[in-house]
Amino acid sequence: MSPERLARINAMLDNRQIDLTICLENIHKPHNLSAVIRTADAVGIGDVHAIWAADAGRISNHKASGSGQWVDIHKHPSTAEAIANFRAQGMQVVVTNLSATAKDYRQVDYSKPTVLMMGNERDGITAEAVALADHEVVVPMVGMVQSLNVSVAAALILYEAQRQRSEAGMYGSRKIDEQKCQRILFEGGHP
Amino acid sequence: MSPERLARINAMLDNRQIDLTICLENIHKPHNLSAVIRTADAVGIGDVHAIWAADAGRISNHKASGSGQWVDIHKHPSTAEAIANFRAQGMQVVVTNLSATAKDYRQVDYSKPTVLMMGNERDGITAEAVALADHEVVVPMVGMVQSLNVSVAAALILYEAQRQRSEAGMYGSRKIDEQKCQRILFEGGHP
Ligand SMILES: C[S@@+](CC[C@H](N)C(=O)[O-])C[C@H]1O[C@@H](n2cnc3c(N)ncnc32)[C@H](O)[C@@H]1O
Ligand SMILES: C[S@@+](CC[C@H](N)C(=O)[O-])C[C@H]1O[C@@H](n2cnc3c(N)ncnc32)[C@H](O)[C@@H]1O
Repeated sequence: MSPERLARINAMLDNRQIDLTICLENIHKPHNLSAVIRTADAVGIGDVHAIWAADAGRISNHKASGSGQWVDIHKHPSTAEAIANFRAQGMQVVVTNLSATAKDYRQVDYSKPTVLMMGNERDGITAEAVALADHEVVVPMVGMVQSLNVSVAAALILYEAQRQRSEAGMYGSRKIDEQKCQRILFEGGHP
Repeated sequence: MSPERLARINAMLDNRQIDLTICLENIHKPHNLSAVIRTADAVGIGDVHAIWAADAGRISNHKASGSGQWVDIHKHPSTAEAIANFRAQGMQVVVTNLSATAKDYRQVDYSKPTVLMMGNERDGITAEAVALADHEVVVPMVGMVQSLNVSVAAALILYEAQRQRSEAGMYGSRKIDEQKCQRILFEGGHP
């Protein structure tokens, strides 16, 4: 591995946010999944979660511009099980919902341990996820379309989280455990 | 037309930003075009520009979740002609570029008349556009991927513009001329 590549991987590891993640509820289109994974990597998220019923077929290979090796995708059989898992890690659950009760996405404190939940392209977030959430947020829109593309909405909220965490000095100091770093460095050196 | 629909269209017209637009250089994927158009509508942009060489085939029908009727797409044969057109309207030209010289996208004042230029999925922005621009901006990334999806990058910058313009009180007072409003109201009432 070249010294430049080693330095690049080490810088990435220093910026990984272990207590910020995103969870996609039955997102079907591969280009949306791919766009979300690229954004996740770019803001320092190394683990992405997907709720994916066993009978829904497999998640298409993610060719998210070279992010495959750097972002792990974790599948959960149901929304309830996924959320129980995030709760066990002490995370607040933020759902995105195009409802009158949702607040502006900039009003949540994302420096806390957080999972952001995104809904399906056609049906949106499930009622179950909304019921289990701490916060319901929306990206304000002043036009005629009913919704944004799901990867666009995800990116807007993740970059707001990035902005807040950057201000709070949460980037640049390593939080991933040493063993995981060694594995990533090893695999990254042998692509 | 129902009173609710009329009120909704009028509110949209009150929020349209006539001196903020986006220009796509040879964006080929229909889902990216569609996502950009939805975002444009959502931040109050009623006119989207595309540089589209005559021999490149037609821009695929945009089925951007009902935005087709509300956002007009203007095609330009070349980057130089498009930029000349924006200059004639007194707009500053902001290009997005993954270069070492680009500054953080949050450092530009988007309350000025502005066109944001986005590059092609594979090749990025043209050297010509960079040479003619006032500002070169980048969305910072701390992971391993080389770039964001183009519709994601566009949305992050357009929502930063929306944030700045909202703070500057630039939403909620009608700027489109009366004749255009009447046409939009007429067409919107007869979908
Ligand atoms: C295309 S939208 C779903 C539209 C669906 N008809 C509905 O009413 O929810 C897919 C997902 O993108 C996200 N999304 C889209 N626009 C959003 C917005 N303005 N604010 C927050 N999330 C949004 C949400 O996660 C949503 O579930
Ligand atoms: C997939 S990228 C192009 C990648 C191309 N290989 C390059 O080096 O430019 C397509 C377009 O998305 C926009 N884009 C992607 N990531 C960006 C970022 N981090 N900052 C600003 N613009 C970005 C730019 O307009 C870019 O031209």
